[in-house]
Amino acid sequence: MPKEFKIAKGVKDWYGQDAILRNEIKDTLRRVFERYGYNPLETPMIERAETMKFKGGEEIQKEIFTLKDQGRRELALRFDQTLPLARFVASNKDIKFPFKRYVIGEVFRDGPTQPEQGRYRIFTQCDVDILGVKDMIAEAELLALAQDCFKELGLGNIIIKINNRKLLDGVLDYAGIPTSKKIETIIILDKMDKIGIEGVKKEIKSLLPKEKVDKLISAIKKGKNNNETYKKLTAIISSKNGKQGLDEIKQLLDYSKSLGLNFVEFDPSLARGLDYYTGTTIEVYLKDKSVVKSAVLAGGRFDNMIGAFMGSKQEISAVGFSFGLERVAMILKDIKKNIKSSNTELYLIPINTAKECLKIAHSLRNQGLNIDMDLKEKRMGQAITYAASLGILYVGIIGEDELKEDSITIKNLKTREQKKIKIDEVCKYLKVK
Amino acid sequence: MPKEFKIAKGVKDWYGQDAILRNEIKDTLRRVFERYGYNPLETPMIERAETMKFKGGEEIQKEIFTLKDQGRRELALRFDQTLPLARFVASNKDIKFPFKRYVIGEVFRDGPTQPEQGRYRIFTQCDVDILGVKDMIAEAELLALAQDCFKELGLGNIIIKINNRKLLDGVLDYAGIPTSKKIETIIILDKMDKIGIEGVKKEIKSLLPKEKVDKLISAIKKGKNNNETYKKLTAIISSKNGKQGLDEIKQLLDYSKSLGLNFVEFDPSLARGLDYYTGTTIEVYLKDKSVVKSAVLAGGRFDNMIGAFMGSKQEISAVGFSFGLERVAMILKDIKKNIKSSNTELYLIPINTAKECLKIAHSLRNQGLNIDMDLKEKRMGQAITYAASLGILYVGIIGEDELKEDSITIKNLKTREQKKIKIDEVCKYLKVK
Repeated sequence: MPKEFKIAKGVKDWYGQDAILRNEIKDTLRRVFERYGYNPLETPMIERAETMKFKGGEEIQKEIFTLKDQGRRELALRFDQTLPLARFVASNKDIKFPFKRYVIGEVFRDGPTQPEQGRYRIFTQCDVDILGVKDMIAEAELLALAQDCFKELGLGNIIIKINNRKLLDGVLDYAGIPTSKKIETIIILDKMDKIGIEGVKKEIKSLLPKEKVDKLISAIKKGKNNNETYKKLTAIISSKNGKQGLDEIKQLLDYSKSLGLNFVEFDPSLARGLDYYTGTTIEVYLKDKSVVKSAVLAGGRFDNMIGAFMGSKQEISAVGFSFGLERVAMILKDIKKNIKSSNTELYLIPINTAKECLKIAHSLRNQGLNIDMDLKEKRMGQAITYAASLGILYVGIIGEDELKEDSITIKNLKTREQKKIKIDEVCKYLKVK
Repeated sequence: MPKEFKIAKGVKDWYGQDAILRNEIKDTLRRVFERYGYNPLETPMIERAETMKFKGGEEIQKEIFTLKDQGRRELALRFDQTLPLARFVASNKDIKFPFKRYVIGEVFRDGPTQPEQGRYRIFTQCDVDILGVKDMIAEAELLALAQDCFKELGLGNIIIKINNRKLLDGVLDYAGIPTSKKIETIIILDKMDKIGIEGVKKEIKSLLPKEKVDKLISAIKKGKNNNETYKKLTAIISSKNGKQGLDEIKQLLDYSKSLGLNFVEFDPSLARGLDYYTGTTIEVYLKDKSVVKSAVLAGGRFDNMIGAFMGSKQEISAVGFSFGLERVAMILKDIKKNIKSSNTELYLIPINTAKECLKIAHSLRNQGLNIDMDLKEKRMGQAITYAASLGILYVGIIGEDELKEDSITIKNLKTREQKKIKIDEVCKYLKVK
């Protein structure tokens, strides 16, 4: 019995429908990213270990895959796209700001996986970031971009939730949360999706006295609309930081309104878990919660991180977000009908005409059609079964008769409809179908 | 002084022109691959170490990057796309043959780099392979595909050299080369590109007596055309293996002729270095040797490898080849004029009209244009300098006057031509330019 070679733990092969869908999503995101003036940046999957270990708590550090080269240099696989971006900016002094880049590429984490949630040890992050713009116009552009991405992915029915870390800080001050407990409180608030408001209340109560909890919970409750929420918070926020955050929210809401983005919701309870956010935080949800309850896109502003990485005192404003390809693909697979399982538009079956068929295939390909053909001279029934198993819709039979008439007998494997088509007209026939 | 975070050794960031060119090449190859009925397969970049170490001599083994996960499992970064393909096929029993897949993805080698040759520790292999077809029709399809790829890349002027490992074996028999010295001889022949015929002669002479060298060198010399080369070899080859190889060459030449692939050259001196080839070997060269002398594409038939990997006695026919993305990009960068450095088609400059400009950008984007805009309210001169530095051709100025007239003043930064265009007509104006 031969040894069995298995795939590594926590990773996945993508083929058939999955691979085609992944390509479609990447193409769509790329197209929209470029439409918004983002240009591609590909950084290597391997970075020096010290670069990857610059940020992030112990939990993240543990999940970094490390390795050494033959020269015993300490290396690491990238675990996100943000640190490589910071390293790139730090090591390229001639970059012009604003710097708008997108990246679609794999990141690596040596942690627990949840395939049913689309979580693997290798996953693909599709990130857009704007560096060097302080004004909320950057956020406004990103919200419009997010809308277009989801619309073109066929997931147009979304809610974009926004909040602001400075404002949240002001809210915590208002509720009398001491600085030492702010981070913990934010981390609990971030679980709202998963454990609901009651769960959050319960967890915070173990941290803080009831009156503060009540004050906090009431402060982060949304109003009936953005305007009401804004008014309510204006009335209670007094810290300078909090006021600035609220002002930024106001600006962003104004921009959004002028752009007609009417699904933007100001939600003061929104608390992204990552500690590097300094201003706006963003999460996108599908309106139809039956598909997926948690956020499908997340991001925000992190004005301190890149400067800190560069060791400079100068702040480099940064705002962006990240699509998880596997997650988006999982959602689309769930709700979309008719995901292609093959890119092939026509499968040619020669009946003792292999050489001529190869020529015909060649000429159809030169017209831009995706053509496959039976290279094994199978029997017709077998060849049709094979084409059907790949998910190809049309087969084209080429026998002596067809050759004489410069034709192909094209059969739709779904409707069983069959028609002899002149070779010159195949392209038209398949495109109009 | 802050610590400096550098990129890791032997790898590269791709941005600007390079990143855009890489995307263009990948898009082109993918389009042609799909036109020939290949479907995508993405295997993970991390495999079990034992999978990656299954094949390849000591030199290759040394260049495999290995790592461990938290569970102390031995892992490796993939160093090619062929072993992962074999592992995939071995672990998916329901695959239908013929199995035609393409892959465009990174591979990793911990070895010496030659940036000037496009060789890095991480590079991108674009592979197509057909599994399960013994007949030369598979090779014929691949040659047509190679032609189309180079044509669409703008490198149409190529020579495709073909040879056959069985035939080469027959030639070695004819020259009286003992089995024990065949591999070494093939490895020397493979250097023909680099050291020329005289260099090859010299090296083989240290291995074999002069008369055998002379016999070999005269046998692998091309005739004036494929027909002559074929006739010459028919006259001298007597081993069964050699005859079969020659017969396969004949079949492939016939198919090629019928497909009109008239740049296919039968070259009996062609000897790919890898020992896993069992039949046809293929190399593609640019006709213009001033651009690049060595092969730009290489591949062949390896009928034993996948079966051996699966531990089965059953042979799984396989033939394919591999484009090196970095190498193709290097060549194109060398010879192509007008490689884009930005995907942005128009850079909008608001003159105290940021909010309105954002709206106009949004509506132009919704018409499919790639739009960037000044988010910093720079002075006009600065904004133009910035757009020019990114390589954007058109800027569009939007002041009070333009707003009143629903227009944009569009300026071509190359010709300095400037014209006020109605917003409705911008799309048309930029597309016809």
